[in-house]
Amino acid sequence: MPLPGTAVTELRQSFGDRFQQGQAIRDQHAATTTWIAPEPPDAVVFARSTEEVATVVRLCGREGIPVIPFGAGTSLEGQVNAPRGGISLDLSQMNRILAIHAEDMDAVVQPGVTRTQINTHLRATGLFFPLDPGADASLGGMAATRASGTTAVRYGTMRDAVLALEAVMPDGSVIRGGTRARKSAAGYDLTRLLVGAEGTLGVITELTLRLQPVPEAITALSCSFPGVREACEAVIAALACAVPVARIELMDLATVRAVNAHSGIGLAETPLLITEFHGSPAAAAEAEATFRALAEGCGGHAFRTASTTEERSRLWKARHDVFWAVSALRPGARGISTDVCVPVSRLADCIAAAEAKVAEVGLVAPIAGHVGDGNFHHLILVDPDDAAECARAADYIGWLNDLALSMEGTCTGEHGIGQGKRKYLLREAGPAPAHMAAIKAALDPKGIMNPGKIVGEAGCRGPAA
Amino acid sequence: MPLPGTAVTELRQSFGDRFQQGQAIRDQHAATTTWIAPEPPDAVVFARSTEEVATVVRLCGREGIPVIPFGAGTSLEGQVNAPRGGISLDLSQMNRILAIHAEDMDAVVQPGVTRTQINTHLRATGLFFPLDPGADASLGGMAATRASGTTAVRYGTMRDAVLALEAVMPDGSVIRGGTRARKSAAGYDLTRLLVGAEGTLGVITELTLRLQPVPEAITALSCSFPGVREACEAVIAALACAVPVARIELMDLATVRAVNAHSGIGLAETPLLITEFHGSPAAAAEAEATFRALAEGCGGHAFRTASTTEERSRLWKARHDVFWAVSALRPGARGISTDVCVPVSRLADCIAAAEAKVAEVGLVAPIAGHVGDGNFHHLILVDPDDAAECARAADYIGWLNDLALSMEGTCTGEHGIGQGKRKYLLREAGPAPAHMAAIKAALDPKGIMNPGKIVGEAGCRGPAA
Repeated sequence: MPLPGTAVTELRQSFGDRFQQGQAIRDQHAATTTWIAPEPPDAVVFARSTEEVATVVRLCGREGIPVIPFGAGTSLEGQVNAPRGGISLDLSQMNRILAIHAEDMDAVVQPGVTRTQINTHLRATGLFFPLDPGADASLGGMAATRASGTTAVRYGTMRDAVLALEAVMPDGSVIRGGTRARKSAAGYDLTRLLVGAEGTLGVITELTLRLQPVPEAITALSCSFPGVREACEAVIAALACAVPVARIELMDLATVRAVNAHSGIGLAETPLLITEFHGSPAAAAEAEATFRALAEGCGGHAFRTASTTEERSRLWKARHDVFWAVSALRPGARGISTDVCVPVSRLADCIAAAEAKVAEVGLVAPIAGHVGDGNFHHLILVDPDDAAECARAADYIGWLNDLALSMEGTCTGEHGIGQGKRKYLLREAGPAPAHMAAIKAALDPKGIMNPGKIVGEAGCRGPAA
Repeated sequence: MPLPGTAVTELRQSFGDRFQQGQAIRDQHAATTTWIAPEPPDAVVFARSTEEVATVVRLCGREGIPVIPFGAGTSLEGQVNAPRGGISLDLSQMNRILAIHAEDMDAVVQPGVTRTQINTHLRATGLFFPLDPGADASLGGMAATRASGTTAVRYGTMRDAVLALEAVMPDGSVIRGGTRARKSAAGYDLTRLLVGAEGTLGVITELTLRLQPVPEAITALSCSFPGVREACEAVIAALACAVPVARIELMDLATVRAVNAHSGIGLAETPLLITEFHGSPAAAAEAEATFRALAEGCGGHAFRTASTTEERSRLWKARHDVFWAVSALRPGARGISTDVCVPVSRLADCIAAAEAKVAEVGLVAPIAGHVGDGNFHHLILVDPDDAAECARAADYIGWLNDLALSMEGTCTGEHGIGQGKRKYLLREAGPAPAHMAAIKAALDPKGIMNPGKIVGEAGCRGPAA
C-alpha cells in the first residue's frame, strides 16, 4: 500500500531531502544480519529533533501509516522490518550528546548516539558507558531492545543503565519517564516499559544513561576447561563467592577453533572462559587470584593473562568477531544468531543438550555466551538456498526455546522478540501477552507503532521460522 | 457503601473466619504511621493462596467492589487506605518460602514473607536478601511500592531484586512476569510495571527474588563532618572513585542528637555519615581505607569503626530507630515521614535549602538519608490538633517536592505515590500520568484495584496535604 499523496506532500515539505522514497534506501532500512526476510518501508524519514519525530508520528497517526523506528540496524529479530509498509523513522542524525554530568555520573544523549561515540566522547572524563553488545549499536536501539552484552554480569542491562528517557508516544505527545535521580518510586515505571518495547509503544527521543568510573585497573584472563560443564561450574563458584567479575564469557570448542582461524590469536583449543576484572589494582588482582583458584578447582588450566590494553583489546576483539569468525567456517552460508537465557545452574545441561541436538540434526552451530547471566548464543550456519536445512534450523530454534523454557529460562536474554520470537513469547509467557496486547492497544489504539513486533496485530507476515 | 449481600454470603462461605467485618480489624487495616486520615475497608479477607486471591478479585470485579492489597501495613503514603470502601486483601498468611535455589542465588516466596523472615530462613545458606527499608515490611508490599533503603546504593531497589513474579490481574487471570533467568529481552517488562504499581494493576501473589552471597567481611565506619555539604562531597568522591560502599547514610545534627538521646549510643554530635563495606577482608579493608582518605579530604574526622557484629548491629539499629528517636523529641506529636530524591550533585544544595526553609517556617524536621542515591527523609513533627501547624507542614512538603523537581529529582525515592503524593506526581511527570492512566484503564477497566492511588479515578478523598 503506497503512502497517501497528502502524506508524501507534507513529508516532502517538512523534511525535504530527509524524506526518501528510493528503493535502495528503503531496502537498506530492512537489511539486517538475520535470516528474517526483509520487508522494506515505503519511505524513510531522517529526523533531527524530538519535534520532528512528533510531527511524523502525528501525521502517521492521522493517516494510519506505520512508523518503524530505526537506529543502526543491528537488531537480530526483524525489529526494523516494515510488514505493513509505512515510514522507517531513521534516528541516526539525532546523534548529539546533550550533557555529561560528571558528579552524578550520567549522560543525556539523543537516541542515534552509538556506544562507541559516547565512549570516545567520555575519554577525558574518567567515566565510561559500560554496556557492550558487540555491534556498534545506537543507544536508542539498545534501549528499545533491552540490549546487554559482555558486561551485564557486572553493570546490568539497558534496563539498569537507562535512568530516564523522553519519548514521543503514539498520540504524538512527548513524555518523560524517570528523572536524573538515581532511583524513584513515583508511579508506573514507564521508563522500564519503553525499554524493551522495541518501538511498539513510542519512539525514544532522548536517554539519560548511568555512567561508571573507569576502573583504575583492568585485567583479563582466559582459561581452558575439559568441557563446557566444568566451565559452567567455575562460573557458578565465582558468582557464589561474590568474585567481582566484570565479564565472564564462554566459547565452546567449535567457536574457539573458528576464532583462531579468523584472528590468528592462538587461543588454547578447548572450551574457554574469558574473564575480566575491574577495580583498584589490589582488588582486581585479588579477584583474578580468587577466580583462578576456583577455576582450578573445576579443572581450569592454561591460564593466560592479558594485562596490557593491547592484549585485552585483541582478546575482546576476537570475542566480538565470533559472528564473522564462525560465518567464515562455511563460505556462502548465512549465520543465524539466536539466543536463550536460563538459570545459571541449568546452563551446562542446556548447552550439553543443545550440542547433542545440533549434532543429531546435522547443523553447524557454534556457541558463545555471556555465561555469568546464563545467556548464550548459537550462530547457526545455513545455506539459504537449501530449504530443507533452513527448515531444520527453524525446527532446532523452536526446540532450543522450548528447552530453555523447560529450564525456567527465557526465549531471549538480549536479542528481543521482534518478529522472530513472537511465537516463543506466547509459549513463554502464557496469559501475560494478552495483558501486553491490552497495554499496546491502550497506548497505540491505531496500531501505528512498529506493527507486527512483540504483540498486537496478527496477520503481519511472520518470520521464516 | 456496604458490601452487597451476595458478596458477603459468598465470601463467608469461601473464607469462613478469614472473612472479617468487625470494626477493630477494619480500622487496623487502615492504620499506618502516617498523617493521612485512615479510610477503613468494609471487610478484610485473609487469603492463603493465589487461587483464593483470584476468587476475591473475580468476585470483586463482578460486583464492582474495590480490592486493596495489604501486606504489613508499613507503607507511608496511604497505600492501604480504602477511600471507596471495599475489601482489604490481607496477604500476611501467604508467608511461605517456596524454594531457595542456592546455585542460582534466588528465592521463590509468597508475598506475605517479611524481609526478616527470609533472612532468618537463609541463615545457614551463605546467602541473604540485601534490601533493608527499615521496617519489617512484607516482600510483596516492598515490591508493590518499589521499596529500597540503606543498601540500595550497592544492591539496587526492589526493581532490581525482583527477577520474576506471579500476579492476579484485575480480570482474575493469573500471569507470570519474568523467569528465573537473570535477564530477559522477552516483551514488555510486566514485572517492572507491577513493581511500584502499589497494587493498582494487580495483586502480586509470588515473587522470585535475587539473593546475594553473605560477604566474607563487613566493616562499618561512622565519620563526622563540619556540615552536610562536606558529607555530600565525600559521598560524591566515593562514588566517583568507585569505592564499593554497601551503605552510605547521612544524619543531620538534629537527627544525631535525637538518636543519642534515644539510644544512648554516643555518636559524635555533628552531621554524620555511616558507611558499610562488604567484600573479602582485603577488599573491605581497602574500601574503608580509601573512603577514609576521601572523607578526610572533605573535612571528615572522628572516624569510628564498628567491626564486630554487635557494634554494627547497634549502629544500624540506631539508624533504623531514627523514626522513634525523632518522634520522642516532641511527645504527643505525630511524625510525618516524607522523602524526595535528587541527583547526588544537588543533594547538599537541596538539604541546605530544606534546613533553611524548615527554620523559616518554624517546623521541627530532622533529616536522615540514603545519600548514595541522593535520597533523604524528613521526619516532620506536628501537633495533630494544631491545624495551622499541619497546614504549614503540608505547605512545606509541597515546597520541598517542587524544590526536588527543580533540581531534576523525583517526588519520592522510595515511599511511593499512594494518596499522599498524587499531586506531586502530576507536577513531576507532566503528560506521563495520562499514559499511566491509560494503562490503568486498559488493565483494570472497572477500576477495582486499589482505587485512588497513583493515578486513575479522581474524586477519592485525598490526603490531608
